[in-house]
Amino acid sequence: MATLKFKDPSPYKQELPKAPVADFLYSSFLKDIALQQAERGTAVQMALFGVGRAGSIHLSALAHNPRVKLLYIVDDVQEKWDAIRQYWKLDDTVFLCSNDADKVFLDPRVRAVVVATPTNTHEWIVTTALNHGKDVFCEKPVAESISSAEHCYKQAKKAGKLLFCAFQRRFDPAFNNIKERVRSGEVGHVHTIKTCSRDAQLPSLEYLRSSSGIFHDTAVHDIDLICWILGEYPTCVATQASTLTPEIAEIGDYDTVVITLQFPSGTLGIIDISRLSSHGYDQRIEVFGPRGMLTSSNERPMHGIESHIGFQGGNTMPIYYSFPSRYKMAYLNEMEHFLDILQDKAKPTIMGHETLAVSKIASACEESARTRQFVQLQWEPEYIPPN
Amino acid sequence: MATLKFKDPSPYKQELPKAPVADFLYSSFLKDIALQQAERGTAVQMALFGVGRAGSIHLSALAHNPRVKLLYIVDDVQEKWDAIRQYWKLDDTVFLCSNDADKVFLDPRVRAVVVATPTNTHEWIVTTALNHGKDVFCEKPVAESISSAEHCYKQAKKAGKLLFCAFQRRFDPAFNNIKERVRSGEVGHVHTIKTCSRDAQLPSLEYLRSSSGIFHDTAVHDIDLICWILGEYPTCVATQASTLTPEIAEIGDYDTVVITLQFPSGTLGIIDISRLSSHGYDQRIEVFGPRGMLTSSNERPMHGIESHIGFQGGNTMPIYYSFPSRYKMAYLNEMEHFLDILQDKAKPTIMGHETLAVSKIASACEESARTRQFVQLQWEPEYIPPN
Amino acid sequence: MATLKFKDPSPYKQELPKAPVADFLYSSFLKDIALQQAERGTAVQMALFGVGRAGSIHLSALAHNPRVKLLYIVDDVQEKWDAIRQYWKLDDTVFLCSNDADKVFLDPRVRAVVVATPTNTHEWIVTTALNHGKDVFCEKPVAESISSAEHCYKQAKKAGKLLFCAFQRRFDPAFNNIKERVRSGEVGHVHTIKTCSRDAQLPSLEYLRSSSGIFHDTAVHDIDLICWILGEYPTCVATQASTLTPEIAEIGDYDTVVITLQFPSGTLGIIDISRLSSHGYDQRIEVFGPRGMLTSSNERPMHGIESHIGFQGGNTMPIYYSFPSRYKMAYLNEMEHFLDILQDKAKPTIMGHETLAVSKIASACEESARTRQFVQLQWEPEYIPPN
Amino acid sequence: MATLKFKDPSPYKQELPKAPVADFLYSSFLKDIALQQAERGTAVQMALFGVGRAGSIHLSALAHNPRVKLLYIVDDVQEKWDAIRQYWKLDDTVFLCSNDADKVFLDPRVRAVVVATPTNTHEWIVTTALNHGKDVFCEKPVAESISSAEHCYKQAKKAGKLLFCAFQRRFDPAFNNIKERVRSGEVGHVHTIKTCSRDAQLPSLEYLRSSSGIFHDTAVHDIDLICWILGEYPTCVATQASTLTPEIAEIGDYDTVVITLQFPSGTLGIIDISRLSSHGYDQRIEVFGPRGMLTSSNERPMHGIESHIGFQGGNTMPIYYSFPSRYKMAYLNEMEHFLDILQDKAKPTIMGHETLAVSKIASACEESARTRQFVQLQWEPEYIPPN
Repeated sequence: MATLKFKDPSPYKQELPKAPVADFLYSSFLKDIALQQAERGTAVQMALFGVGRAGSIHLSALAHNPRVKLLYIVDDVQEKWDAIRQYWKLDDTVFLCSNDADKVFLDPRVRAVVVATPTNTHEWIVTTALNHGKDVFCEKPVAESISSAEHCYKQAKKAGKLLFCAFQRRFDPAFNNIKERVRSGEVGHVHTIKTCSRDAQLPSLEYLRSSSGIFHDTAVHDIDLICWILGEYPTCVATQASTLTPEIAEIGDYDTVVITLQFPSGTLGIIDISRLSSHGYDQRIEVFGPRGMLTSSNERPMHGIESHIGFQGGNTMPIYYSFPSRYKMAYLNEMEHFLDILQDKAKPTIMGHETLAVSKIASACEESARTRQFVQLQWEPEYIPPN
Repeated sequence: MATLKFKDPSPYKQELPKAPVADFLYSSFLKDIALQQAERGTAVQMALFGVGRAGSIHLSALAHNPRVKLLYIVDDVQEKWDAIRQYWKLDDTVFLCSNDADKVFLDPRVRAVVVATPTNTHEWIVTTALNHGKDVFCEKPVAESISSAEHCYKQAKKAGKLLFCAFQRRFDPAFNNIKERVRSGEVGHVHTIKTCSRDAQLPSLEYLRSSSGIFHDTAVHDIDLICWILGEYPTCVATQASTLTPEIAEIGDYDTVVITLQFPSGTLGIIDISRLSSHGYDQRIEVFGPRGMLTSSNERPMHGIESHIGFQGGNTMPIYYSFPSRYKMAYLNEMEHFLDILQDKAKPTIMGHETLAVSKIASACEESARTRQFVQLQWEPEYIPPN
Repeated sequence: MATLKFKDPSPYKQELPKAPVADFLYSSFLKDIALQQAERGTAVQMALFGVGRAGSIHLSALAHNPRVKLLYIVDDVQEKWDAIRQYWKLDDTVFLCSNDADKVFLDPRVRAVVVATPTNTHEWIVTTALNHGKDVFCEKPVAESISSAEHCYKQAKKAGKLLFCAFQRRFDPAFNNIKERVRSGEVGHVHTIKTCSRDAQLPSLEYLRSSSGIFHDTAVHDIDLICWILGEYPTCVATQASTLTPEIAEIGDYDTVVITLQFPSGTLGIIDISRLSSHGYDQRIEVFGPRGMLTSSNERPMHGIESHIGFQGGNTMPIYYSFPSRYKMAYLNEMEHFLDILQDKAKPTIMGHETLAVSKIASACEESARTRQFVQLQWEPEYIPPN
Repeated sequence: MATLKFKDPSPYKQELPKAPVADFLYSSFLKDIALQQAERGTAVQMALFGVGRAGSIHLSALAHNPRVKLLYIVDDVQEKWDAIRQYWKLDDTVFLCSNDADKVFLDPRVRAVVVATPTNTHEWIVTTALNHGKDVFCEKPVAESISSAEHCYKQAKKAGKLLFCAFQRRFDPAFNNIKERVRSGEVGHVHTIKTCSRDAQLPSLEYLRSSSGIFHDTAVHDIDLICWILGEYPTCVATQASTLTPEIAEIGDYDTVVITLQFPSGTLGIIDISRLSSHGYDQRIEVFGPRGMLTSSNERPMHGIESHIGFQGGNTMPIYYSFPSRYKMAYLNEMEHFLDILQDKAKPTIMGHETLAVSKIASACEESARTRQFVQLQWEPEYIPPN
């Protein structure tokens, strides 16, 4: 009975630990049980522009959200209106063509708009909404060029309204956990930080043609993640890039990219990106310092399953296929954060100048790949690194 | 350039594989994109009895479900009605005390009721609802005794209505995956099947006193899982049980149990259960046969995170804390399945006699623990094993 | 530069931690570097009986061991002598037939003998060696019956010599780690302990016929492991067993067994065994208590490798195939421990009465399987549980 | 009995699969059982120069190797001779000072020499041994400069003897497995290949001062690994480097380095290196192509152990601490490969020009770090990439 001496007092006599906060689904259940209406506040009246891929993701976060009243949907594919209304049970939502968008802007009930239309329409919708006193949630990128984006943010400042353009990965529970722990010093001063991002779903050539290239379309997410975790902007980047797919070469874009970044504190960063992953949506990060290492490897829909058939070794389930599933929780959290800001329950955790800084870095990386030169970056005082 | 010879044709020239079905969140996104209204059908008009722990879980699956119109909530804690209405944005739902439950039963619009009240009220609500032509979704257990449960199912048969009492684990994506693969012969004839279930959240003594004991309260889930995967009922069980907590001993219940089961085909089963897990809600299964092994170990809210600090070794995040988070997806799937049955899109996958069989086995296990004897079980022809 | 504030003093200014003791290969390198002759002592002069499977394993631990001088090998397969001598470079070892074993017993230089012959010869060799003042390392089991084994141990006591019959798993680094941690209270009073043992290499029917059955041949390892970790002997066992292979049924043995054990302190134990594993040598243990859980799952020759090809999920390398590879380190450690005892550097960690206790438990398990009854066990005071 | 229909014929009626080759310890056991003397051949008579850290590692592979007769050890620390002789039981080995090394070179029995002395003595020992008709196994680097190394290899060619200077990682079972699978096309044309190498054991400043810098001392291993797997040499490299430790800065070396490499086929390579790992000897590789990904993450002395204590999450054992333990098997395999070449059982798998190519690449990487320029590399036809 060698272990009987370790018998603890009855758990009924002990104060037991609370559920770990890492179990965010359980936290959410506790709120349901407690009917924490206070946290939900009064429903925010909103309009949504665009119901494409990104729009659908945001719609799923808005349609049945008790914190939201969706007054308008603006989308030009009129023949889908009925289906959208029925599918999402939007009995009280008014559907409009973009021609009639004024009705949204002029409706004083509309507190905020969500912009998920094609990029070339962003600037107009964003600035008009701001000018009419609406807060704005805009899908990345906020505009087609850095200068247009700067213009939008100036407009927001002038209007005293929020222009919120989020990188959703910041709202992923795992990446958030990494950031918190790095910022608490768990690995010490960061020596090396690495991200890997690979798309499983091959983008259409049409999409690629209209996209702003792999650096502004894809690398920005990794650049933001790294700078957000570190709280620093790089002063030197070097990029090597390949194009292994003829169709992408024809467009003049790359499909395989490796970026290295040097930061003022001595930290080194590495980003590697591919458009051509056949094994799933590969999204990883590693932060290394003198006290140790933190990693976030790929999440899977079912991670506990493993088979051992004959001598084939262990076999687990595939990782997530693409961003709508991998970042489902991040998209939900992102919208809740936007609502929290509107309801004065949180300060914005991502600022306009951070988005602009990321664009500048992406441009430098692109230049390095093209010129095969190291590219230096200088930062004006207004580029305060992420907090 | 030793690997260049493996260069494949451009992915733009290949037919690319579809997203893996295992990524159920992506499948759900695809439905959103396609606005698959057909799958949602006309909203089912329902009533919910009870908004406690279980009721809240079901309410979260009903309140914002586009397939459902929640006409009534019946709950006697009147002072919570407003909070419930506000929190869940239930503007059109009528709240009633159980005294007024007749309004539900007599309202011809109500197609189905969900019963999540205390067990001792089940039989009356279930049978009354059935007699008034409603389909019934009832939280486990359907009634306080096996004979009462049999009575309910007979009533359902007589009324030609559905009485659906689910073990939610069957609807967990991971356990479902294990079942499908075992039934496809991946491990061959099963030789050994093992489940392990441990509660992290210590049940209150009040709960334990009113519960039907660890075998009927807890072991039934494991017993059902095993029989459902195997498609067999055991013919002999042997149980050893301990009570390591004085307060539970006083109640006359056990807190630590090991069950072994022998099946007609020669398969052996093992169940081990504990009320006293401090490391989280431990829920695992292993199926072993001559062709190999399938396991489902614990899911975590964030599974990809690992730290390596100094020589402490690798450290991952905690597993789920309790059933509302661990089985969140299972509860949602369970309700969708109930809706599918009502909308003629699916046949019930769990039958009344299966629930009764599980109760019989639990009673035999309890008897074995008490008498320290192997207990034999015989099965009448109506006890068709799970398909 | 948010993490710069965590910058530690230069490692050249800090006292750095030593290599973790868990890296036993590095500890061994440090000994090599330090030429720790003292630990090796004067070479022990020995004889080996039997060069079959087990004998070969022990020979590989003896032939090039600087702590050993192998004076004799006794084996009746004379035609292999030359090959053995050449293969193992045993230029100074004398080979003998068992007829001439007296030369070994009468040679006063021989300090110890290692017995790895067929079981039916053990008793005679062991007792003769003991009577001639040799210490004895004997392969399990020490004799064909419990009473013969008791006789051997009595003989050892009388002769004042060591009779060492080891369960090699105790010397496995992983299982040893588990034991140390359980005994230090890491999981508290143990509530449940489980082992799983499955053979990948199908035993020949000839072997099975001459073996003492699955309980005495196989289950004894698991029984010993559990009692060794717990420091307790069970007072009640219940076994369910199947025979799924006709050839094994004909012999009257089982191939699939599940044992449950109840211990005086309230701990429950589970053992599940199979002769029919196709996925490798499955050897696991789990110890659960109110403070947490410790597990040792399967070791692999290459554990870090993982592939992700298409949507097949993650694929790792197979686990070890059989005991000579899985327990290679354990066999080496076991022999080093024997040498440590002989050189007065360690006390024996496994006592004769422990081996006998394990046999008694195995017999009770077998009886339970056969009679389908719970079997009680009583322990005389001389059966001191493992320390 | 839903799975009984999958019952296979008795395993005694089937042809069962052989043990997986991946279980290299089992393969070795099978050789022992079969006494495969043929594979061992006649013992090779050898001399060892140097018994420091590296020398001790090689001595442990030579001292008790039945394929080797160690005639001489040459080492100037005369006061350790006795300890070495005793510790390693080298009764028949002659110990010499380097002054008397001629005795080795002039002894016609000596077939081969192993050189593990300080680097500045390599060239003389290597060339003298070659000139006396000995085959040579030399620790990396073969000489202090590229030109000296070239001179050594020319000498070997002239003498018609083998100069074998190995990167041990090529002989690690896991890295070997990765290479074989990449070369069989498992991931297709490689798009990205990444290695990570971090030292847990802080090198002494004395060592660093006499070393050839982090690129030639450390990065060469990663460079070789990548080129060996790919069968290509890079044509462009870009390096970013930091020195985060003041003492290393004073020496003018770096401690944290990130290298990117572009290969002719379009493959991109990444190497990241650190001298400052506190969590163990971090040695990983990842190969990514359009068909999937292969990774080799860190091996641990005990990998199967995991604890779950409270809500701390899962905790595994630390990874290996340093090269002598992590690459123990690699060092043994490397020496066996050298013996295989001497006994005409294998062709050398690593050629002189490969070693020289790696040095050239390391120099280019160093230049890139210093100049902050991309550095191009050109390859003469004699630089045939690894096969």
